Amino acid sequence: MSDFTQHMATFDKGWVWLVGAGPGDPGLLTLHAWHAMQQADVIVYDALVDERILNLKNDHCLLEYAGKRGGKPSPKQRDISLRLVELANEGKRVLRLKGGDPFIFGRGGEEALTLVEHNIPFRIVPGISAGIGGLAYAGIPATHRDTNQAVTFLTGHDATGLVPDSIDWNAVAKASPVIVMYMATKHIELITQRLMDAGRNKSTPLAFVVDATTKSQNVLETTLGNAAADYKASDLKPPAIVVVGDVVRLRSGLDWLGALSGRILEVDPLGTRKQQDAG
Amino acid sequence: MSDFTQHMATFDKGWVWLVGAGPGDPGLLTLHAWHAMQQADVIVYDALVDERILNLKNDHCLLEYAGKRGGKPSPKQRDISLRLVELANEGKRVLRLKGGDPFIFGRGGEEALTLVEHNIPFRIVPGISAGIGGLAYAGIPATHRDTNQAVTFLTGHDATGLVPDSIDWNAVAKASPVIVMYMATKHIELITQRLMDAGRNKSTPLAFVVDATTKSQNVLETTLGNAAADYKASDLKPPAIVVVGDVVRLRSGLDWLGALSGRILEVDPLGTRKQQDAG
Repeated sequence: MSDFTQHMATFDKGWVWLVGAGPGDPGLLTLHAWHAMQQADVIVYDALVDERILNLKNDHCLLEYAGKRGGKPSPKQRDISLRLVELANEGKRVLRLKGGDPFIFGRGGEEALTLVEHNIPFRIVPGISAGIGGLAYAGIPATHRDTNQAVTFLTGHDATGLVPDSIDWNAVAKASPVIVMYMATKHIELITQRLMDAGRNKSTPLAFVVDATTKSQNVLETTLGNAAADYKASDLKPPAIVVVGDVVRLRSGLDWLGALSGRILEVDPLGTRKQQDAG
Repeated sequence: MSDFTQHMATFDKGWVWLVGAGPGDPGLLTLHAWHAMQQADVIVYDALVDERILNLKNDHCLLEYAGKRGGKPSPKQRDISLRLVELANEGKRVLRLKGGDPFIFGRGGEEALTLVEHNIPFRIVPGISAGIGGLAYAGIPATHRDTNQAVTFLTGHDATGLVPDSIDWNAVAKASPVIVMYMATKHIELITQRLMDAGRNKSTPLAFVVDATTKSQNVLETTLGNAAADYKASDLKPPAIVVVGDVVRLRSGLDWLGALSGRILEVDPLGTRKQQDAG
């Protein structure tokens, strides 16, 4: 076994590390994230962090939950940030563990700016975002040379819980052959309608990837036109990534996780192979 | 130390694993990637993989380079894919190690489909993409609640080396407050002009993040209007990520790596803090 600890950083007392936990599979933790968990005094985690990951903490480390639980309102963002300040000021090594990546719709920037405000030193440890790594576990590449040279990631609701006003759906529909949406199931009917109103064909492939990379991963393949009804008819629940575009068709060729359970993969899911070989 | 090997998969002979190496810092390897390197018989790697990462391989593992070298033309994509098939058919555990993530402009889908064509079993291991993790090491979040609910990732040249025809620059300019560009330095003048022609202000902040997360990381902050001239006047060379949008302004508050070397971070880089506290 090679020794990677030479590349690890020391987690000093009174510091906060904002760490991405990735989408769920503990194997998608980074070496930095795992090593930070071996040094931390307290881990402040949110709802999207898998229990198998939390179990990788060291024995003396405390766990503190910072999400919504049991019908109680979820703590305000500012309260979570100030709790990090408080723990750091107690001299603890504070690991703030967030699902996915702290900077992809993870509010890591806000928490870090509160730390700056209170003179708390910090480090950012990026994580695998579900919109990339979660899709990969469904056999769906976020980009593929034959389908798209651009991909747009967006969030389906803003701080108020509504579909973000700031998103120009007409432009998004035209800008990117592939659109990857976080937190989009609540408003899926409205969002898919806006994309169709902007000219995206109702037959455009769309997939919901639920509980990506965990043992309960589930994928619903449908179309832009049928997505809202099909999701409603299913018993699927968030967290889910919604992906729109022809890359969804590649799943029949690239579903390596399905192949582990016996699925026969298609050689030519896009029907373009002859063309490629001639080129 | 907690034991993560319970979550690791066995790398069987005759298999190919397509593995993302992340942007450069060995600490950004995933546990799966590191563990795969301990089991592999051969690693087929490309130019963007950091030497410190390759040094983490096991002792019996061979290294095979699949990129451009010493003025020779780079191997064709199909030749690389067929080499993976050949090595797998020899009964080797073949680790195809790619910079960043295999599915973000990494051509992982193409390689995997060639494996399917030749009945070679495979697994995908996602990696940290430079457009997210590399920016994080520059203190630039790809998303931030006050600046953007959408982000577009695109590649600045296609297989022919030209700016991709398929990209609707007008729509991209309007769709996403933040645009993250891979392989965009060669055509930076044309690309920035197209974004300005589409209505993006020439004063929009823009940054080049060169050699992200490595020891030679370098960041050039400029504007959309000055980017081409400033890059030309610098001695910077690819690989670089180019990021356009107000998130670049957050660097003065979030440059945690700079802070390790004494940079004083700004509490309120966007000038919006009072507003937030009132909300």
